[in-house]
Amino acid sequence: MENVTLSELRPIPNPTVSKLIAWTTGNEVSMTVQTQPFINSERLNQNVLNLANIGRLANGGVRRLSFSPEDLAARRQVWQWMEAAGMIVRSDAAGNIIGRLPGRYEGSALATGSHIDTVPLGGRYDGTLGVLAGIEIAHTLRDHNIQLDHPFEVIAFTDEEASMIGCKAIAGTVSLDPDRYRRKDGLSIEECLKRVGGDWSRIETAQRTRDDICAFVELHVEQGHVLESEGKAIGVVQGIVCMQRYNLTFKGVPNHAGTTPMHLRHDALVAAAHSVIAVNTLANNSPGDPVATVGMLTVWPNATNIVPGEVHTSLDVRDLSRATVEGLVNDLQEKLTEIAAQTHTEFTIQPILDVDATPAAPQIQQAIAEAAEFAQLSYMYLPSRAGHDAQEMGRLTDMGMIFVPSAGGISHSEMEYTTPEQCAQGANVLLKTFLTLDKMYAV
Amino acid sequence: MENVTLSELRPIPNPTVSKLIAWTTGNEVSMTVQTQPFINSERLNQNVLNLANIGRLANGGVRRLSFSPEDLAARRQVWQWMEAAGMIVRSDAAGNIIGRLPGRYEGSALATGSHIDTVPLGGRYDGTLGVLAGIEIAHTLRDHNIQLDHPFEVIAFTDEEASMIGCKAIAGTVSLDPDRYRRKDGLSIEECLKRVGGDWSRIETAQRTRDDICAFVELHVEQGHVLESEGKAIGVVQGIVCMQRYNLTFKGVPNHAGTTPMHLRHDALVAAAHSVIAVNTLANNSPGDPVATVGMLTVWPNATNIVPGEVHTSLDVRDLSRATVEGLVNDLQEKLTEIAAQTHTEFTIQPILDVDATPAAPQIQQAIAEAAEFAQLSYMYLPSRAGHDAQEMGRLTDMGMIFVPSAGGISHSEMEYTTPEQCAQGANVLLKTFLTLDKMYAV
Repeated sequence: MENVTLSELRPIPNPTVSKLIAWTTGNEVSMTVQTQPFINSERLNQNVLNLANIGRLANGGVRRLSFSPEDLAARRQVWQWMEAAGMIVRSDAAGNIIGRLPGRYEGSALATGSHIDTVPLGGRYDGTLGVLAGIEIAHTLRDHNIQLDHPFEVIAFTDEEASMIGCKAIAGTVSLDPDRYRRKDGLSIEECLKRVGGDWSRIETAQRTRDDICAFVELHVEQGHVLESEGKAIGVVQGIVCMQRYNLTFKGVPNHAGTTPMHLRHDALVAAAHSVIAVNTLANNSPGDPVATVGMLTVWPNATNIVPGEVHTSLDVRDLSRATVEGLVNDLQEKLTEIAAQTHTEFTIQPILDVDATPAAPQIQQAIAEAAEFAQLSYMYLPSRAGHDAQEMGRLTDMGMIFVPSAGGISHSEMEYTTPEQCAQGANVLLKTFLTLDKMYAV
Repeated sequence: MENVTLSELRPIPNPTVSKLIAWTTGNEVSMTVQTQPFINSERLNQNVLNLANIGRLANGGVRRLSFSPEDLAARRQVWQWMEAAGMIVRSDAAGNIIGRLPGRYEGSALATGSHIDTVPLGGRYDGTLGVLAGIEIAHTLRDHNIQLDHPFEVIAFTDEEASMIGCKAIAGTVSLDPDRYRRKDGLSIEECLKRVGGDWSRIETAQRTRDDICAFVELHVEQGHVLESEGKAIGVVQGIVCMQRYNLTFKGVPNHAGTTPMHLRHDALVAAAHSVIAVNTLANNSPGDPVATVGMLTVWPNATNIVPGEVHTSLDVRDLSRATVEGLVNDLQEKLTEIAAQTHTEFTIQPILDVDATPAAPQIQQAIAEAAEFAQLSYMYLPSRAGHDAQEMGRLTDMGMIFVPSAGGISHSEMEYTTPEQCAQGANVLLKTFLTLDKMYAV
């Protein structure tokens, strides 16, 4: 089987095995199947369940906070699985666990990965699927005695759910101010990294270059319900959106709700309500496909019989195009000026976060789409409107992302669910994508 | 002077004393002034300042919570001042302090009064002005050797700012369930009344009838800024409004603010924002002169990156006409049904308070208006959209209310201010009104 070249592989168009992908060296089903480098769905899904036992919650969810004993235990497990898949494993100054299969040529690597830490009440798939699919690909390649031209790396990034210190350290986008990464409980980044074998004082040694990694592709559950509602199996991520956040303040005059006639009011909540609707309307009518959300709103003094004197709201705007985000915010500011005049109130809008978009490399998007077609899986293009490790990796090198559906769009929840078949489909598309990229990128 | 009948009194049209009211027995200024039953502005305003020293706050405001040591001290002071004005003073089972001047005939009384308790950070005028103006009228009548045909009563009602137990006990509208009047700090109504010489077990003995009191007129600061913004000295209150309160709940689906496209959202805050605007628009466009307020709004989970899943708001609607209040609420419910359909959310609206309007007696409104004209003071008709002791007294007998301006409409605040001249103007209109009513009502 060592003589089979990967570019010759074709799927077996047999509906009865459509949930798996079989590869042959010829065009005809009747030909002898010489190799089947599809991933082992059972092994992958068993590993997902096994890792979910570390930090398992009563209802099947997972609590595996970064740097916690559960995180450390899961790291040891992942390290062992990488070794069992034949990888050479190391960790860097950011505590990232990096498993590597040597390539036929020792040039720039193809890399995948994600994270194994969770939110406080998390699910089994967010992050974990991407790491374990990478390990499963290493297993599959070894099972089939396939060696890629490029080295192949699987990275379990440190602390994706909070600081994103792992991917930032590799991408070279980490801030050198340790206080930026101090946790809410007061724990310093120095102490956090020490727990996972990292070293803040040497954080810059974790940085890689495009010469080290020529392409990075991450498999992740969607964490939204676009794929499910569109009935698609695979999401080809166009990029990770630009995100801007603002704090808005509306100032009126608090007054007696009984004794103040309507025409003498300066009602900050009426102004804020107009703003909430303006945000929603602008997002629905803007070019592109932005989302804009007022998720937080607080009223002062918040009493039944007092006309609201002051209201604070958040604003979160995301789109692949920075121009669309900025256009929406500009239009909102114009609208707010009108609202303030109409409601006899004042407003301020204060920027608090601005994250640039990370576009996915067009050739990787195409490779993913072709891999989905090859596997006879339905697919669609969509942006990732949530942050991922790929967001930072895309600042370092060519990036791509593959989404598989989340049931009901639910994530960051113990209810998070992606079927074993969907997990395997995503991993197989990831595998096929790397087989394509291995030929596409020069060694 | 005892021979002067009050109906012969006419004002002296002298602009230099326009802030006071002088009365003569003839039509000509040149005639000898035989009597001047205008109130003593200096005495009235000095008493206002003196009472403000009991519970005085550093910035000139007053903290005189019902049943507190400050309230008890102020009650002793008011009792003494009533006696000093020649009144026979008693208190009833609700702790109301009732000062009485005998009439020429011992029939049904003309009554005035208000309260001397304050909110935690209160002003000098809210309530106090009405009680002290009543005492000042008693002084004035005695100073001029005038005896009314009717007995004249001044009542300092118990706990207007919270339970309104005093006026309710006299009006016979008190609930017999003591738990309805338990304070937030746990203190029972039994204990509260004991402190002021009352007796919950005999609360029904405080009830009066129309045979006891044929008319009740209360002077109060406006606690709003209608008079000030209209440039009027005197408000002739048309009645105390009907008030309904509701709790509204908007239910959507909490979801990731990044990964949930606009068209897949069920945003409870967008629905609530439409409701806030609908409430405001309906109040501005309804017949009558209603006010409607969303003063309280809380969002769940109230996080920047989560589409709001649930929102709770208050609703407070007031108008002289119950039909207007009910019409507005009905229109809102129709609108909410539309909003729920448009926003893919659900709503519930739950009534929590319904207070009937108390109309002011037309003949008392007319007497007040004529008294203002007589005193050459500008006046206007307006509703009281705040509750007052007169609200309950109006359920017992013919009721009227006189408003004088509050600077900036500010009340329930240490900043509350009404000028000494405005206080005296209100008291003089109150005096003249009683002189009219004394003739109007049969003895």
